[in-house]
Order: sequence, then C-alpha cells, then structure tokens
Amino acid sequence: MKMHADPDSVEAAFYQAFERCDLTAMTRLWQDAPDTSCIHPGGPLLQGAGEILDSWGQIFSQASPPEVRYRVVNRLQVDGLAVHTVEEAVRPGDGESDPTRLIATNIYRNTNGNWQLIAHHASLPMIGQQPRRGPVH
Amino acid sequence: MKMHADPDSVEAAFYQAFERCDLTAMTRLWQDAPDTSCIHPGGPLLQGAGEILDSWGQIFSQASPPEVRYRVVNRLQVDGLAVHTVEEAVRPGDGESDPTRLIATNIYRNTNGNWQLIAHHASLPMIGQQPRRGPVH
Repeated sequence: MKMHADPDSVEAAFYQAFERCDLTAMTRLWQDAPDTSCIHPGGPLLQGAGEILDSWGQIFSQASPPEVRYRVVNRLQVDGLAVHTVEEAVRPGDGESDPTRLIATNIYRNTNGNWQLIAHHASLPMIGQQPRRGPVH
Repeated sequence: MKMHADPDSVEAAFYQAFERCDLTAMTRLWQDAPDTSCIHPGGPLLQGAGEILDSWGQIFSQASPPEVRYRVVNRLQVDGLAVHTVEEAVRPGDGESDPTRLIATNIYRNTNGNWQLIAHHASLPMIGQQPRRGPVH
C-alpha cells in the first residue's frame, strides 16, 4: 500500500481518486477511525470510513469522471495533524457544463509515518464573492 | 483580556458572542493572523481577522440576537491545534422561526497559552440526513 510522507501527497492522491472515480484508491486515503468525517456540499455529516466510502461510491456510480482542479489557499501543520483550506473546481464529466467552484477544509493525520485524510468538509458558495454580504451566520 | 485555557472555553465564548451579537467579544476570540479564515453557510472564503469581523458585524447588524445551541460531535487535539466538529442549532431572534441546523468545523490555535479561533467553516445540510444520498461531490 502506498504511504504518503506528507499531507500534500495524500491530497494530490485524493483529488486524483475523485477525478478518476477510483473507489479503491479513495479507500486507501481515508483513515479507518471512528472520528473520520466527511461533509459533501449541502450534505449531512458522515462519520466513519464505512459511511464516507459508501457516499463516494454513490457519487462515482452516478457520474462520469469529472475534471477536478484544486488550489491550496492555506496550510496549517503541527505534530501529526494538518489542515488545508482548498479551492476546488469540479467540471462534470459531461464535457459541457462549467466547473463548479467549491471551498474545502481538508484535515490530515499522520499515523506511523503515513498521512491520511480524516476530514473533508466542502461547501458551495452561493452568496457570491462579496465578503461584506454575509448570510445570516 | 480574558485568556482561554482550552478549546472548549473559547468555543463556548464564540457561541455566546454569536448569541449576544457581541462584536467586541467576538473580536477577542479570533486570532489576528493572515491565515485566519471563516466560511459562513453558502458564503465565500473570508480571510484575515478584518474581513471576518466585518462579516460578523454585518450579521449582527441585520438580525435580532438569535438563540444558539451547539453540540461538539468530535474533538481532535494535538500540540497547539484543535479541530472540533460541531452541530449547531440557530433560532432567529424573531421568536417564531424554527431553528436552522448547521454543521461546523471549528479550528483553534494556542498561542502563548491562549486558545483562539483560527477557522470556522459552517454548512447548511440541504440534502436531508440520509447518508447514502450523497450530492454530486
């Protein structure tokens, strides 16, 4: 099994697995722990690798492989834990739609030298990009 | 200035400041650093304490103080950094509406013994609570 020596490496593998709709690769990237969590845009809180991977399987079965681009806006890292803020652009696999722009908080944990994903929280900004126009909370 | 000796303390103060629409209290809770970030539900990525506090000021000026309840679903903590997954219930101050249920990822950093908020990413689940029904990513 491929080990990831840093958070950037597992993050690249995560977006590649997403783009390829590769559930086997995706499975290796998530830490199999009860506190692992995933929130898809507009979705509920999913907890534990089983529930999370079921959701990715569902996503992959419904769609053609999308084109996924991402840019890390911010990185925080301390002993064994890393938090990345990421802008994502996901273009559906139909080849016609414009990319959807999302924001994600990705959290990685290092166990025995292997970095894995322990939380992915993604959102779809719908209010526009004007910072002064906050929604109600 | 009040110091917060642990993440739970600053988290309680954050939700109290939100409930009271108290921008002065809110200002003390956020770390004044360029990598501080906030994503309101459906909102864009806000970066830096100035932009973030402007958004809270806007929210507070538009609304009567809401009733805010929260429950920490998960806590991760390593040296100087803590990540909480939180379920929120925010009832608008009009006294009539039902509470809106949200999910947030709150991230805290310890600097010189004082825990402060460095990231708040909140989402409104719109797809229902069935984990198997994932949205398209």
